[in-house]
Amino acid sequence: MPILNKDMSLCISLSARPSNIGTRFHNFLYDELGLNFVYKAFAPTDITAAIQGVRGLGIRGCSVSMPYKEAVIPLVDVVEESAAAIASVNTIVNDDGVLTASNTDYEAVASLLASHAVDPALPVVVRGSGGMGKAVIAAFRGAGFDDVTVLARNLDAGRAIADAYDYRFTDAEPEPFAGVLVNVTPLGMNGPDAAALAFSHEQVAAASVVFDVVAFPSETPLVRAAREAGVPVITGAEVIALQAARQFERYTGVALTADQVARASEFSRAE
Amino acid sequence: MPILNKDMSLCISLSARPSNIGTRFHNFLYDELGLNFVYKAFAPTDITAAIQGVRGLGIRGCSVSMPYKEAVIPLVDVVEESAAAIASVNTIVNDDGVLTASNTDYEAVASLLASHAVDPALPVVVRGSGGMGKAVIAAFRGAGFDDVTVLARNLDAGRAIADAYDYRFTDAEPEPFAGVLVNVTPLGMNGPDAAALAFSHEQVAAASVVFDVVAFPSETPLVRAAREAGVPVITGAEVIALQAARQFERYTGVALTADQVARASEFSRAE
Repeated sequence: MPILNKDMSLCISLSARPSNIGTRFHNFLYDELGLNFVYKAFAPTDITAAIQGVRGLGIRGCSVSMPYKEAVIPLVDVVEESAAAIASVNTIVNDDGVLTASNTDYEAVASLLASHAVDPALPVVVRGSGGMGKAVIAAFRGAGFDDVTVLARNLDAGRAIADAYDYRFTDAEPEPFAGVLVNVTPLGMNGPDAAALAFSHEQVAAASVVFDVVAFPSETPLVRAAREAGVPVITGAEVIALQAARQFERYTGVALTADQVARASEFSRAE
Repeated sequence: MPILNKDMSLCISLSARPSNIGTRFHNFLYDELGLNFVYKAFAPTDITAAIQGVRGLGIRGCSVSMPYKEAVIPLVDVVEESAAAIASVNTIVNDDGVLTASNTDYEAVASLLASHAVDPALPVVVRGSGGMGKAVIAAFRGAGFDDVTVLARNLDAGRAIADAYDYRFTDAEPEPFAGVLVNVTPLGMNGPDAAALAFSHEQVAAASVVFDVVAFPSETPLVRAAREAGVPVITGAEVIALQAARQFERYTGVALTADQVARASEFSRAE
């Protein structure tokens, strides 16, 4: 019986269209670890009032999703570099009324580039220029990659994001090359673009690493193509799990094991 | 495993010193009735920001306890008569951003006077002049009782509350009489005054009805004395259960049976 108690710490998410992923990930681990926490997703009606509520109610942690990632910046007290670098917040921690904002997507991408030992000397092509693209491109810059090309159909957005991080922009399809292919578009994501392949089989076969930020499904057509071609992959499922683990640690102070993250991720997807 | 979901409605309590009673009462019934609701107690750091949060997060219901019962009045949109009559709110319902305040303590007392068929022509002595005293005395006025005396050690508070409802005030112990004895002091409550009897055995034996607003323990020394003397009683446990049932119905739209209220009350006390 899910009986809460008065001393539980509450963590929440703020999103125009909440999913159950975060709710299931965090609550699964609170339960497994015996932490006196509970997690609840919200679709706020007023983001300023919602953040006031985080303060006034003493809500411990707050995950921020579209379309509030930039809007919350003037509402918090401290903006860490991970969020300031991309003007995008996905995590707010409330320490006795002091709200600190960070971006664990940025942190997760930077961490995965390091843990997968991706050589910063490799040339990189990033397809896409949306909100997640900014976190990924900034993380490449932060990780010391100099040879990055932003490839996008949206010329204005693509040029703007490339310029912001002193990278090149192109709207022309690259020839196959021995470098890093990164997809930050919805191509291959569950939905209308589920069957789309973000890079051609020829591009994939030539690549050194394929990084697909799409997290649903966990194996996109691009990831499958890379695996079949024997090319190392970094998946969106890894990004989402790692960024959630970092949020979890910030909210609770508990560092998760890889096994805990894997099981909570699996649980969060299995609804 | 207490896994929440994104579509759950949240109800909360706001109190400087939360107990587990409301949390257990409401969550027990949400679970038993299969309602997609969850209830969580908060000790807010800023009541204005907390009510902003109720709006901004779309929190469905909000129970209000000491010391916020009056402070929330300017923060809501509609104040019902039950709360306006005593300038004291214990319940806020959020209907798509419109916050309506009421006082289910007042409603519960008025309802119990009717359901126990207490004759409004009887003389009444109410001992006490605190916050709950106001709800009780106002409910006697609302129920048509004219012959009410407020008995209090605090002369100023006692006179003020008696004057507010056009009742008499006294600080002198009444002779035993055939009427209604009401205790709204902490005498007999768990704690330092647990053994205290709010009215003498002689007063109790002469009375027509004894009404003890103290809810913990469920059988106070006063209630026990009245039962032993064969005098009809109304208990604080009835008040707290009925007011919670009214809150529950306002939040969820579900009217509870007496059996559901009794079992949830028992569960809420058994921690």
